[in-house]
Parts: sequence; structure tokens; C-alpha cells
Amino acid sequence: MVRQKIPATPSIRRLPSYLHIIKNVQSEGYEFISGTVIAQELDLEPIQVRKDLAITGIVGKPKKGYPVAALIAAIEHFLGWDKQKNAIIIGAGNLATALTGYQEFQFHGLNFVAAFDTDVRKIGSSIHGVPVFSLETLKEQVNNLKATIAIITVPSAYAQETADRVTQTSIKAIWNFTNVKLKLPRGVVCQREDLTSGYAMLSLMLNNTKPHRIKK
Amino acid sequence: MVRQKIPATPSIRRLPSYLHIIKNVQSEGYEFISGTVIAQELDLEPIQVRKDLAITGIVGKPKKGYPVAALIAAIEHFLGWDKQKNAIIIGAGNLATALTGYQEFQFHGLNFVAAFDTDVRKIGSSIHGVPVFSLETLKEQVNNLKATIAIITVPSAYAQETADRVTQTSIKAIWNFTNVKLKLPRGVVCQREDLTSGYAMLSLMLNNTKPHRIKK
Repeated sequence: MVRQKIPATPSIRRLPSYLHIIKNVQSEGYEFISGTVIAQELDLEPIQVRKDLAITGIVGKPKKGYPVAALIAAIEHFLGWDKQKNAIIIGAGNLATALTGYQEFQFHGLNFVAAFDTDVRKIGSSIHGVPVFSLETLKEQVNNLKATIAIITVPSAYAQETADRVTQTSIKAIWNFTNVKLKLPRGVVCQREDLTSGYAMLSLMLNNTKPHRIKK
Repeated sequence: MVRQKIPATPSIRRLPSYLHIIKNVQSEGYEFISGTVIAQELDLEPIQVRKDLAITGIVGKPKKGYPVAALIAAIEHFLGWDKQKNAIIIGAGNLATALTGYQEFQFHGLNFVAAFDTDVRKIGSSIHGVPVFSLETLKEQVNNLKATIAIITVPSAYAQETADRVTQTSIKAIWNFTNVKLKLPRGVVCQREDLTSGYAMLSLMLNNTKPHRIKK
């Protein structure tokens, strides 16, 4: 995996929430939004919001706040969401069906062009209009479809071999929904979405709502 | 939402990855594991791993490392994963099907006892053996089933009203898979799983693999 210097992860992860709020404000007809309003909506400190938004290169005006249209454009450009990216999804199961059906991604330039599976009952079918191909045809399809992102939703036991197949294609970005830390060649970037991490957070908060407190 | 002082979020979020590696090592017959080995597997600094594991109250022995069985027990106890928790899932769609089918959760004490939907075609069916009930019956079912966690996978437009229904039951923990920041009464904890955050990270890394670098 390429280790590159990018702005702080929590700041990046908050940008989609900001974008969501700012777009809502725009749809209500407002032309400016203050960092304080965004902060209130998300239960954050205003200074944090301003710092995060500064990453995108845009600065608010005193008393007026941020121009809504410019702020949306700045966030989308910063994230590369103003350009369409073709993605393939490997493992045409329930998670793949959920992801391809999640409209939000399409608004952010994520275009699902193909799914792949090894199950002959799935090959030839489609999920939310995305055709399911045999995994054997991965390399040629990736070239044909000009895909740049591979989303891996296979069972964990097949995660590494699936990633190995992907890295033999021209794809340089993997979104990994398995709980396996993939071993990848240099130059391939990877984002792992580990649902057990979120569950760990929730479990701990749930423990802390009870009288018996955790030792620190 | 209750604002409580808990250990640093990134440390908590890494614990499931540690647990996964340590359990693999145990299944291979090892009795001790060093923090350095865990660090190598996850591409982290050994000092970071030791600090994170110290949260659970366990300290490694010089040259020997951590006793595997005790370390697993300590992590699971710290997270409350050694106790079963009954969860309901609201919105019996593809994401609900993916979540209820994800075995990992069951190993960590998450027991799906019921799903709820407003779609009459889904009510009365089951997903991975989890019965789907009418949302109208939420309150009585939560009491009957002794559920403590509600997982919300409804479309975003229905997120807040769903959360309002949940907070009228005895449930005090919500796992929110919508992109809406829920407004919740004090005493109810919430973990939001925002897939667009992960996509933002991936998009930025993908941008950075190209010659045109982002201004910082």
C-alpha cells in the first residue's frame, strides 16, 4: 500500500457529512452557510468545522459564512467527486446489492459498471442494473469498462486471492469490505471498511450507559 | 446523545483487528504473541499496538509478549463482547440481509432477534432466520425480545422518525447506517456508520495516485 501524506483522516471523513448539510441548505434556497450552523448540526466545535473546511481551500467570510455553491464545488473537487469513476464490485451478494442500490454514491461520481462472482447462478444476472460476470473474465472486463476502483465484498477467506486478481489488472484502488488486512503491491491504495470497528464503538458506549463503568 | 469520556476512538476501532489476528494465532496453536508481530500484520508502530492493548488492562511480558488466551479474553471483556446482546434491525432490505448474514457479529455476541419493516410483502418473512415484523409492533416486540440495540437501515428520509420510534422503547443504543445525524434524547448512544466517509478516503487516495497532487 502506498503510504502517502494526506490531511488528517477524521477531517476527511467528516467532509461528506458537511456536504450533505450544505446541499440541504442549498435546496432550501440559502446562498450562505456559517461554520457555526454546520457545527451545531453535527455536534462539533465551530473551530473544528472551519479547520476541516479549510482543507478544501475555501475560507468563510466574517459574518456571512461560506458561499454555499462554492463550498459544495470545493468539497467535491477536493474529494474528486466532481469526476465520474467506474467501479467494479467483486462478490455479488447482499452487501453488493446494498451498495449498488445506494443512490448517494451515484451523486458522488461512483459508477458501478460490473459485478463479478464465481457462482454460476449469479453470473449473467444483474443487481440494480449492474451486470454480473464470471470472475474469470475480470482482467478483460476491467480494460473494456475502464474501471479504476474495485470493491471487494467476498467472504473473508477469499479476500486476499481476490485482491491478488485485482492487482493483476490496471486497477489501483481497492475498497475492502472484508475483515482481512490485504497485502498489496506498492502503488495500490486501499480503504478498509470494517463493520466490527463500528460495532466495537457501539458496544463500548452501550457498556458505559450502565452503572458498572469500565476501568481506564 | 450522551457525551461520555471513553478511550480514543481510533484505538477502540483497531481492537477488532487485533482480536482477529490474535484469534488466528491461537488457532495455529501459539500461546504468546508479541506486539511487534501484530504491528507488522497491520502496518502499525509497535508502540501504538502496545498502547492500544493497554486500554484493555493487559500488559505484555518482555521477550514473551502477550498470553494469547488472556489477551483475547481481555479485549472481549473490555468491549462487552463476552456477553450476548439482542439487536433488532429496522429496514429489512439488502443491507439488513448482509448484516444478519455476517457471521463475525455472532462471534462477538451480537444476536439479531427481529427485523422490522413497513412493507407488507416483507412482514412475516425472514432474513437469515430473523423474523420480519411490522414496524407497528416495535414497542411490544422490543419488550418481549429483550433487545438492547437497534440497527437502522431505512432510507435516509425515514431515519429520524425511525429513531424517534426507537427511543420510545427501552432501547438505549442505536447503530445508524443512514447518512442522517440523528437527534436523540440524552441517555441514548449512537454509532453512525457512514459509507460515504470511507468512499471519501478512497477517493482522495485515488486522486493522490495521480501526478496532479492535491494542495495542502
